[in-house]
Amino acid sequence: MDTGETTNLRLKWLGIDTRKEFVVYMRSDCPVCISEGFSALTRLMVTVGDKTIIATLNVIHSDLLAHDEASLSTSAWNKLNAQEGDTIRFAHLQPAGSMSKVRAKIYGQTLGPEAYEHIISDIANHKYSTAELSAFVTACAGDRLKLNEIISLSRAMIKAGSQLTWTRDIIADKHCVGGLPGNRTTPIVVAIAAAAGLTIPKTSSRAITSPAGTADTMETMAPVDLSIGHIRKVVEQEGGCVVWGGAVRLSPADDILIGVERALDIDSEGQMIASVLSKKAAAGSTHVIIDIPVGPTAKVRTPEAAQQLSRYFSSVGSAIGLTVEVIQTEGTQPVGRGIGPALEARDVLAVLQNSQNAPEDLKQRALLLAGSLLEIAGLATHGEGESRAESILKNGTAWEKFHAICEAQGGFSEPGTAPFTHEITAEHPGTVSVIDNRRLAKIAKLAGAPHDATAGLTLHTPLDTRIETGQPLITIHAEARGTLKYALEYVQSQSNILEITS
Amino acid sequence: MDTGETTNLRLKWLGIDTRKEFVVYMRSDCPVCISEGFSALTRLMVTVGDKTIIATLNVIHSDLLAHDEASLSTSAWNKLNAQEGDTIRFAHLQPAGSMSKVRAKIYGQTLGPEAYEHIISDIANHKYSTAELSAFVTACAGDRLKLNEIISLSRAMIKAGSQLTWTRDIIADKHCVGGLPGNRTTPIVVAIAAAAGLTIPKTSSRAITSPAGTADTMETMAPVDLSIGHIRKVVEQEGGCVVWGGAVRLSPADDILIGVERALDIDSEGQMIASVLSKKAAAGSTHVIIDIPVGPTAKVRTPEAAQQLSRYFSSVGSAIGLTVEVIQTEGTQPVGRGIGPALEARDVLAVLQNSQNAPEDLKQRALLLAGSLLEIAGLATHGEGESRAESILKNGTAWEKFHAICEAQGGFSEPGTAPFTHEITAEHPGTVSVIDNRRLAKIAKLAGAPHDATAGLTLHTPLDTRIETGQPLITIHAEARGTLKYALEYVQSQSNILEITS
Repeated sequence: MDTGETTNLRLKWLGIDTRKEFVVYMRSDCPVCISEGFSALTRLMVTVGDKTIIATLNVIHSDLLAHDEASLSTSAWNKLNAQEGDTIRFAHLQPAGSMSKVRAKIYGQTLGPEAYEHIISDIANHKYSTAELSAFVTACAGDRLKLNEIISLSRAMIKAGSQLTWTRDIIADKHCVGGLPGNRTTPIVVAIAAAAGLTIPKTSSRAITSPAGTADTMETMAPVDLSIGHIRKVVEQEGGCVVWGGAVRLSPADDILIGVERALDIDSEGQMIASVLSKKAAAGSTHVIIDIPVGPTAKVRTPEAAQQLSRYFSSVGSAIGLTVEVIQTEGTQPVGRGIGPALEARDVLAVLQNSQNAPEDLKQRALLLAGSLLEIAGLATHGEGESRAESILKNGTAWEKFHAICEAQGGFSEPGTAPFTHEITAEHPGTVSVIDNRRLAKIAKLAGAPHDATAGLTLHTPLDTRIETGQPLITIHAEARGTLKYALEYVQSQSNILEITS
Repeated sequence: MDTGETTNLRLKWLGIDTRKEFVVYMRSDCPVCISEGFSALTRLMVTVGDKTIIATLNVIHSDLLAHDEASLSTSAWNKLNAQEGDTIRFAHLQPAGSMSKVRAKIYGQTLGPEAYEHIISDIANHKYSTAELSAFVTACAGDRLKLNEIISLSRAMIKAGSQLTWTRDIIADKHCVGGLPGNRTTPIVVAIAAAAGLTIPKTSSRAITSPAGTADTMETMAPVDLSIGHIRKVVEQEGGCVVWGGAVRLSPADDILIGVERALDIDSEGQMIASVLSKKAAAGSTHVIIDIPVGPTAKVRTPEAAQQLSRYFSSVGSAIGLTVEVIQTEGTQPVGRGIGPALEARDVLAVLQNSQNAPEDLKQRALLLAGSLLEIAGLATHGEGESRAESILKNGTAWEKFHAICEAQGGFSEPGTAPFTHEITAEHPGTVSVIDNRRLAKIAKLAGAPHDATAGLTLHTPLDTRIETGQPLITIHAEARGTLKYALEYVQSQSNILEITS
């Protein structure tokens, strides 16, 4: 990869936060820039000690840096474990060789396993620019990936990251394809399954296009950014965990791709299947329950679409050695009351703690999934799983187990509360007849979720609620006045987010 | 567009050059960031005086800025005509509304005229992030644009920019779809046509994926970044010009899209047709010659592909009111000797000045195109155009006209010379039987072209040249040792860029 001669500068801390993008700063008139002709380039290979990354070059035309100094964006600085005064070396970058395959995909060709392996390896090694990542995601979206391509993509994603192995024969897992705000069953299912004696090392994603991913929600109650060693200890001790998959590089390319999908607000079928199943396989899972909520404003809108997705999940799963059971659930309205990381965590805790006002829909859905998992794993006979799950929840062992898991992950804490709230009330009486999940999710995102953990909304009136004028419908929660106002302005510009018929 | 309350900081110059990307810098703990919750966002609306742009937010975690200070990347600073100490205001950004249409296109839908108008208007107003631009370009690539969509895209591009009008009935123009290094006929055709009395206000692009665009080459001989008023003056005085289209916002969205296509190294059919014809129509052209070089390593590889492209050019042209004549030319090897802005300019000057060693292929090709243009514009009868063009070139009036155009554009200057060169010689005797245009172009780009104007290569041995061991084949030209070395390493890693058969 290193083709040019390397040349040195000294590192200076500037503290510029470019988020995930690695950026390197150097003077346009510094010796490295001049001798190497770097100012014609946009991306470089950058080495500090024994670590190398690819970074975007920003040239400095001021005295921010001396002639022999360079700097890095905070993400690049951290990635390279850099210290002020360290020597930083540079080299020309060979263009990512696999981009020719991405171009072939853009032009409509079907790619083979080697092509996906090359692409995913380059992506995992940070060789793609944002524009290149976006092109790959777009070229694979819609129905442009054939079944064999999804299998190749899944295998490539597994290969590009770490893999966990366990000493037990059955490793359980569950996943929800999302699209239904508040559908935060995972912590409950993991607690029940682990309390029942199953091994369930659950790795979750952060939100892609939703106001909260399971990892975002879990993070308001316990640390989720654990090393592989730490995860292993938690699972050996408690039988289960709920951690962020990206932290353990189980499928590092996928985490990069998800970042781009989030920016584009797309979440395409082939990528999703590969993303989900590659993470399950890499985590060492053998038996997986997939929850597909179906509804007109959920991610999957029709039973036919759900059927096709189920087939793909089963075929790809079996190609990479997983037993996959798909369960279609109702997706016409949010589950629970909260939408946003901390607000959803409160619903989860209410169910686990058997609170009187726990959301019944969240509880029933978690029991259905936990019951199926107990059945396919052989811990309950067919048809007995759900009642077995219910007794574990009712007798408090699920809550005990969840608390123990949180403690093992680094310590349980109560989810926080947002400093700014605003209540939206009914303008006329009637009955709630339709709820638009997508626009509810958008309000929660405009309010700051998932970046602001306590931001989001509470939905007070599920479908069929009889309401009076002035009755609270939705409470918006935000961590800043600006975001609260922004969410409110969106609400005011819309009509019928909740349809109320008299 | 402005939905949040705006809040103020003071501008400080930091001199950070992020190229085209607009970036705004502020402290994470500054009052604006805290009260508005900006640190959750990645892009903001930024206003200085009466100018507003959309910029990416980079948060500063150091004393680079005081609490009441903000800064801008150099491109954003220039765009806003900012001065140190100016007040800078901020507002939340509404997501680009048209991205929902791009997502529909990603998922395979056909879009109508309003959708393209909305998308192109948002792009021209800098509302799209790099990832979003890349997704749009990718979603339109391959054969994903129907004829009607190309027409809608062309009309939208015309509408989003300035439009020139002229008092003459016939306004001539020419364009080459590219893919053939060194094919720099435009300055010669413009000189001949203008000398013959035609009006030919030629706007050209910079390179997309090639080592030089016509604007890059012309810029080594005269300024090309002219205002509309200046262009009008040049054309009124001399009958023709060769300027950069982007400078006059004739199709500003297209210039942004071309930047992304260059980064991805793709140049797709639909975008190309819309790009070319929208610029012609916006420039007020009525009669256009399109040159399509066809060859196994040219952009268009087969006569069939050229045929389809010709049909699209004619159909879209006629839908937007242009008379388009397409000419297929030979595309098996570079035209002229130089590849790279300044090196191609030397070839152009040799032809215009009737030098003894002027490249004959470039001259013949320019005469063919100029002759056709004279014919469709009614200045020569059918079959007489080429000889008319030749006499204008031979008697020196074409060179006189070209020099006058350069002077009117701001002053003629001789193209520069690269400080570093390296000669590649033949390892065995034989005859040059195949030339790989694409890899030659890549060598020139690795050497620094088009960013480094004097970089590129000279090809000494066209097809069928009989050569001896040690005879010079190619000279590489570079402005830095690093880029020269980089190009050389690529040459050494390849075989048969020139195939030599004994």
